[in-house]
Amino acid sequence: MPVAVIPFKRKNPKTRLSCVLNETEREAFAEAMMLDVVAAVRDAGCRPVILGVEPFESEDLVQVAIPDKGLSDALNEYLSCALDAVLIIMADIPLADETSIKRVTTTQSDLSIVPGRGGGTNVIFIRDAKKFHVDYYGGSFEKHMKIAAEAGLSVDVIDSFRLHTDIDEKEDLVELLIHGTGKSRTFLEGLGFSLTSEQGRIGIGRKQYPGSRGSSSVS
Amino acid sequence: MPVAVIPFKRKNPKTRLSCVLNETEREAFAEAMMLDVVAAVRDAGCRPVILGVEPFESEDLVQVAIPDKGLSDALNEYLSCALDAVLIIMADIPLADETSIKRVTTTQSDLSIVPGRGGGTNVIFIRDAKKFHVDYYGGSFEKHMKIAAEAGLSVDVIDSFRLHTDIDEKEDLVELLIHGTGKSRTFLEGLGFSLTSEQGRIGIGRKQYPGSRGSSSVS
Repeated sequence: MPVAVIPFKRKNPKTRLSCVLNETEREAFAEAMMLDVVAAVRDAGCRPVILGVEPFESEDLVQVAIPDKGLSDALNEYLSCALDAVLIIMADIPLADETSIKRVTTTQSDLSIVPGRGGGTNVIFIRDAKKFHVDYYGGSFEKHMKIAAEAGLSVDVIDSFRLHTDIDEKEDLVELLIHGTGKSRTFLEGLGFSLTSEQGRIGIGRKQYPGSRGSSSVS
Repeated sequence: MPVAVIPFKRKNPKTRLSCVLNETEREAFAEAMMLDVVAAVRDAGCRPVILGVEPFESEDLVQVAIPDKGLSDALNEYLSCALDAVLIIMADIPLADETSIKRVTTTQSDLSIVPGRGGGTNVIFIRDAKKFHVDYYGGSFEKHMKIAAEAGLSVDVIDSFRLHTDIDEKEDLVELLIHGTGKSRTFLEGLGFSLTSEQGRIGIGRKQYPGSRGSSSVS
C-alpha cells in the first residue's frame, strides 16, 4: 500500500486568492482542498501522510513536520528512508479522484508523473523511492523528467486534467465549481460563490465580498 | 471510421493573443494548431472534416462551409445527416494526440466528452449522431451533459489535460511550449518564443515584439 505524501502549508496559504478570500478563509479553503486530496488518495488505496511546517489539529491524519529545510530537501530525506512505493501529491488539486490517482499508481513504469499548470509537478509516483529525488522549484516537471532519465527510470506521463488543475487563482475556482464534488467546493458555495455567465463565458461571482469587484469572467 | 469535425475560424482568430501576436501571425498560428489537431485525429483513425466560414487552400483536407447560421446550428445539421459516429473536436487544442483521442473514441458509452477550461466543451464523440444535438455557447459542458441525460444517453467524461487545454491566452502558450510536439509549437519557436523563469515560475518571452512588455510569468 503506497504512502501518499501531501505537502501542506497551513499559515497564510494561496495568497493569489486574496482578491476573493481573506486570510482566515484562505486557510480554511486550503485545508478543505487538502482534505479532498486526502479522501481521494484513501479511496485509491494509499495511506496519506501530511508533510508540513505547522502542525494542526487532526484526529486521524499522520503528520510529519518539515525540519528546518526546504520542501525538496524534506521530501528527499523522506524518499531516502522509504520502504514502500511513494506517491507525492500536492494539496491544492481538489479535483483529484480515485480513478485519476489509480491511473498514476497502477503505472507499469518505474515512475509516473502528472504535470501541473505552468510547468510544475502535481503528482509523482515512485515505485522504488530510493532511486529518485525531487527538485520542486521552478519548472519542476522538466527537471523531474531529466532526473528520471539520468537515473535510467522509465516514466509514464499521466494525462489527467483533474490532477493537472492546481487551484491558485480566482479563475481556477471556476473549475472547482464545475467539476468538484468535495469539501472545498462546498466551502466555496457556503461563502456565496457561484458560476456566472457573461457574454457567453463562465466566470465566478461572490456575494458581498469587500475586495470583490463583482463577478468576473474567464474563458 | 469516425468522422472528426473540426470547426475552424480562419480570419482574425484568437484575439486574446493580440498582446503577443499580430493578426497575420494569429491566423498562421491558428492554422498550425488546426493542422496539429488534424494530424492527431488521423493518427487516431478518424477522417478530418474542416467546418468553416472561409475556405482556405489545402490539397488534402475535406472542407465544409458553414452556411448562413451559427456553429451549433451548422453542427446540428451535420449530425442529423451523419451516417457514422462523429467526433467534434476544437481546432485550438494542439496538445491533442493519438492516445488521448483514442480514449475518447473507444468509449463504451453512447457519448464521451472532454470539458475545456472554464466550462466549455473541447471534444465530443457521439456514437449515434442523430440522437444528440450540440449547444456551444456559454458553459456548454454542463449543457451537453444535460442534453445527453435528457436523451437517455450514457456519458463518459474523459479526464485528459491534453484535450482540456485550449490555447486562448498568453499564459496558455506556456503549456504548448512545454507539452507540444507539432507545428504550432514549432511556429511559436520560430517567432522567438521561449520559456522563461522568474521567481521560480515558468513564463514565456518573445524577442522584440512591439506590443510585448518582455517576458511575463504565469503560475
